[in-house]
Amino acid sequence: MKRVDYSNTKITGGFWRKKQDLIRNVTAKAVYDRFYDTGRIDAFKCDKDCKIKPHFFWDSDVAKWIEGVAYLTKEKREPWLEEIVDSLVDEIEKNQDPCGYFNIFFTVVDAESRFKYRDCHELYCLGHLIEASVAYYEATGKDKMLNLMCKYVDYVQKVFVEEKTASFVTPGHEEIELALVRLYECTGNEKYLSLSKFFVDERGQRLEEAVSFGEQCYNQSHKPVREQSTAEGHAVRAVYLYCAMADLALKYNDESLVVACKRIFDNISKKRMYITGGIGSSHEGEAFTVDYDLPNLVSYTESCAALGLALFAHRMLLLESNAKFAHVAERAIYNGFLSSVSLDGKGFFYTNPLEILPSVLSRNASVTEHYDWMPNPQRQEVFECSCCPPNIVRFIPSIANFLYTHDDKTIYVHQFMESKTKLNVGGNEIEIEQKTNYPYDGRVEITVKGACVRMAVRVPEWCDCYDAESNGYMYYSIDEANTVISLDFKMSPRFVYANPEVLADAGKCAVTYGPLVYCMEGCDNEGHLRNMALDTESEYKIGYNSELDVPTIELTAYTREGSQSLYSFNKPKYKKTTATLIPYFAFANRGVQEMQVWHDYKW
Amino acid sequence: MKRVDYSNTKITGGFWRKKQDLIRNVTAKAVYDRFYDTGRIDAFKCDKDCKIKPHFFWDSDVAKWIEGVAYLTKEKREPWLEEIVDSLVDEIEKNQDPCGYFNIFFTVVDAESRFKYRDCHELYCLGHLIEASVAYYEATGKDKMLNLMCKYVDYVQKVFVEEKTASFVTPGHEEIELALVRLYECTGNEKYLSLSKFFVDERGQRLEEAVSFGEQCYNQSHKPVREQSTAEGHAVRAVYLYCAMADLALKYNDESLVVACKRIFDNISKKRMYITGGIGSSHEGEAFTVDYDLPNLVSYTESCAALGLALFAHRMLLLESNAKFAHVAERAIYNGFLSSVSLDGKGFFYTNPLEILPSVLSRNASVTEHYDWMPNPQRQEVFECSCCPPNIVRFIPSIANFLYTHDDKTIYVHQFMESKTKLNVGGNEIEIEQKTNYPYDGRVEITVKGACVRMAVRVPEWCDCYDAESNGYMYYSIDEANTVISLDFKMSPRFVYANPEVLADAGKCAVTYGPLVYCMEGCDNEGHLRNMALDTESEYKIGYNSELDVPTIELTAYTREGSQSLYSFNKPKYKKTTATLIPYFAFANRGVQEMQVWHDYKW
Repeated sequence: MKRVDYSNTKITGGFWRKKQDLIRNVTAKAVYDRFYDTGRIDAFKCDKDCKIKPHFFWDSDVAKWIEGVAYLTKEKREPWLEEIVDSLVDEIEKNQDPCGYFNIFFTVVDAESRFKYRDCHELYCLGHLIEASVAYYEATGKDKMLNLMCKYVDYVQKVFVEEKTASFVTPGHEEIELALVRLYECTGNEKYLSLSKFFVDERGQRLEEAVSFGEQCYNQSHKPVREQSTAEGHAVRAVYLYCAMADLALKYNDESLVVACKRIFDNISKKRMYITGGIGSSHEGEAFTVDYDLPNLVSYTESCAALGLALFAHRMLLLESNAKFAHVAERAIYNGFLSSVSLDGKGFFYTNPLEILPSVLSRNASVTEHYDWMPNPQRQEVFECSCCPPNIVRFIPSIANFLYTHDDKTIYVHQFMESKTKLNVGGNEIEIEQKTNYPYDGRVEITVKGACVRMAVRVPEWCDCYDAESNGYMYYSIDEANTVISLDFKMSPRFVYANPEVLADAGKCAVTYGPLVYCMEGCDNEGHLRNMALDTESEYKIGYNSELDVPTIELTAYTREGSQSLYSFNKPKYKKTTATLIPYFAFANRGVQEMQVWHDYKW
Repeated sequence: MKRVDYSNTKITGGFWRKKQDLIRNVTAKAVYDRFYDTGRIDAFKCDKDCKIKPHFFWDSDVAKWIEGVAYLTKEKREPWLEEIVDSLVDEIEKNQDPCGYFNIFFTVVDAESRFKYRDCHELYCLGHLIEASVAYYEATGKDKMLNLMCKYVDYVQKVFVEEKTASFVTPGHEEIELALVRLYECTGNEKYLSLSKFFVDERGQRLEEAVSFGEQCYNQSHKPVREQSTAEGHAVRAVYLYCAMADLALKYNDESLVVACKRIFDNISKKRMYITGGIGSSHEGEAFTVDYDLPNLVSYTESCAALGLALFAHRMLLLESNAKFAHVAERAIYNGFLSSVSLDGKGFFYTNPLEILPSVLSRNASVTEHYDWMPNPQRQEVFECSCCPPNIVRFIPSIANFLYTHDDKTIYVHQFMESKTKLNVGGNEIEIEQKTNYPYDGRVEITVKGACVRMAVRVPEWCDCYDAESNGYMYYSIDEANTVISLDFKMSPRFVYANPEVLADAGKCAVTYGPLVYCMEGCDNEGHLRNMALDTESEYKIGYNSELDVPTIELTAYTREGSQSLYSFNKPKYKKTTATLIPYFAFANRGVQEMQVWHDYKW
């Protein structure tokens, strides 16, 4: 199976056009401004007298932003953005060590400790710089950054593989592994691919430097990757590794890696994933925990982890055309990832809670020094560890990456977005146009120009009006020059129930509408949300919230009204009422208030 | 109103006789042995070359044990226990500074820092040593320890009141305040009472040394005590302070203190108390949090705090004969306190969770250095901070303290225990005998010998077959020399519902039987407890668990059976089953397993 790159596709309208415009017109600048204010941009000057001490992951923050700018540039050049990038690249060139090494922190603050601390993110930063350089080259044809990074990678190859003079064998935070595959794809130079393989193969082969969270599984070093069967440790580190594993499995046709990837994917999607596609239940270590442990109020579910899961899931489609991978990508993209950015494009969540109770946010009133961890109930413009905002800047402009894969005969349609795509399949130039108001409407019209292909269209996981033929896809033979496939994945609110092993959701239901998970917010509903119970036999009404510009769902519900004494023998009474739900991704745009994804329901 | 001391009463049989025998025959020695093993006993030798460095609160651990031994001794002398105490007292005498000061840590480890660190428990230790010395004197007539402590208190008076040379004004952990009242009652020396008043009055009058948890309210120093209206900070510190406030309110007839005590009591009992009488929701600071914040899975509810709440509640009965105080004492004694000791008398809980999910106890598998706090699911023989075990040793042998209060005309019967009591009321010698199998049976026969009194019998909060005349009591005139009051507070399982503001319990019910909160444990029930829903209209069956020697409750329930996929559109089905519940105090005596106090119920 082959990828169909974002650059083959133009998002022509609908949901994602608006989001991409928002990134272009608001978010790209907003993130840049905050990065400028916090010293991240000037840090590239590597001025040792600079007042603001750089953090060792700042390179990666800006690199992800550059990568996002590249995607925006590929669609439509923005001279002011290119100017910024070019000057950053000039600074990298100026401050790169003659040997090829480049890292701001380990140049300005601690030049003696290069490749000394496993968990100090040098190779992670390099990975993002590689991705940025490839994207920027592909978007603009400018190869300066690409060449600088190749030089740096050559040095890494020397230090880690040939001379083995680094203090560790594999990096504490994965990222370079998948970036090296990308560098190989761009340059065709196989040594980059084999360096990636080196880092993946060596992971978990020995006890390496313990990181801040103590355990080897924190960064997936608890056993060789081919022996891993559960998703462990820091969720972002984990999915970045799994992406590289999937890439290498494909490139090397490595069956043992394929098997490991599938096993880990199944563990995540069947036992360790929130309904939103969020992953990493625990704030301690930002980590996976144990099967079915998916607490709502203290969910961690980092934005970057949901994004990374989508990347991993889509890569799996290159190993096996099975809709289960695209289902997970869809779930993560429209929910656990998309919630990370505010509707105005300026605010970002690091963590994406599944429940907010403002009353307990102040539960540490007596003890402010230490406190029980609670996720932030509101998005912020920027934060100290700002990996997520620039990840959003690079993810949304390249969202079309998720649309298709193909082999010589069949084009797989995994996702649905209003768009036009050109690609070459088995020597034939094919044009595909999707017309749809997805995710708000299940009607999709796919027009295929070109011949002699077969279209495989994914039946969404939530859709019950089509029967997939195999692996979750419907197949259409395209014999005519201009074929239209008209689909209607009829959308209506659906109630979802978790596996009884998910004790956090026991006795509760969630509501979905198409690919969107819906939630309740306090301002749309009376009383405490935990005291509401939905009627799952209810008629529904689709409304519209103009402030949020989203469809709402109205359902019959019951509000619990109990005694005012702390404990009472009087059973609460239920008062009929209406529950109003909004898409999960739109929560927390109207101030701090209650929010809930999993609801009680009437028997 | 006057107290009726434990020493007036003999527990003659029934529930508490067994518990007291257990303390005498097992627990007293078990705690001593662990204290010996850990170096706490030998620490009294104050040997500077001792291998085991004493902790600054060890004095108090042993002091509470001595107090417990005194209560046992008062009932029946145990020479081997007295010998141990006498030799400990000799060590205190030997190592007491000529000025009167005595504290193991600040003699052996850091003699330069006496009264320098507010939160280093010197006056807390002294408080417990005072209580022990008073109890031991009253039990044996031996006054050596009492005199040593009086000398120490005289020194404290000089340092804190006259010379003001200590580095702080009020202690970081309250206890000495209530102990000084007791010392005053024993010696009749009013300077001890006024020293107690000094420490209580000065608290919160100024910003004092910040303690480890940062905030002034951690040790109730956020405002003057008469202005406090909510229970704040470390729960044990808090209730020990409130005890002293209630004592002083009575001794000084201090109306503003009475009002503050009532206000704080109402805040606890109406908004910040678990159904078990446990208090202190948060492990951070072992503290109260905000109104209605009573999480079950991560409840802290320290044993000492429940015990302290019972002490506070009973003291309130001396200020106002209102059954609401005795209700809370009963709730705490039979549930949140009693759960702290294992049925074999050897294991102790520091925290008393309201829910245990073994599956999430291992949720930190990936990250062992840091981890989300979870209460211990099993009692331990001793622990580093072992304030609770000796508190149990002193509490149960003196449990009869809770039975009665009286004024010149009326004897109030607050609690029900098989017992014989002699007391003098308005010049008349009165004998009271209670025959009852409480808390397992609601029948209580109270025989009163002696005349010219009025008996006021509390109607338990859970009882719906008697109407109290006023303030929760039924009144009986005792005109004859030998009057029998026969009561039957009919017991049956009752379903309890929390205030809808308690969001942790929304949609759930608890089951009580008389004063006992019941709970479900995994081994008595099929499947996950969170997937069970009780039928609140159910017939019930009272059974008996011979392993635990407790009555069980069997109720109709429904088990949720859902889809095995992580998320499903199929609504779970309910299968009729039987739920078996045991008394909460008896949980965790059969290995680590699920436990639950608040249950889903069928609409």
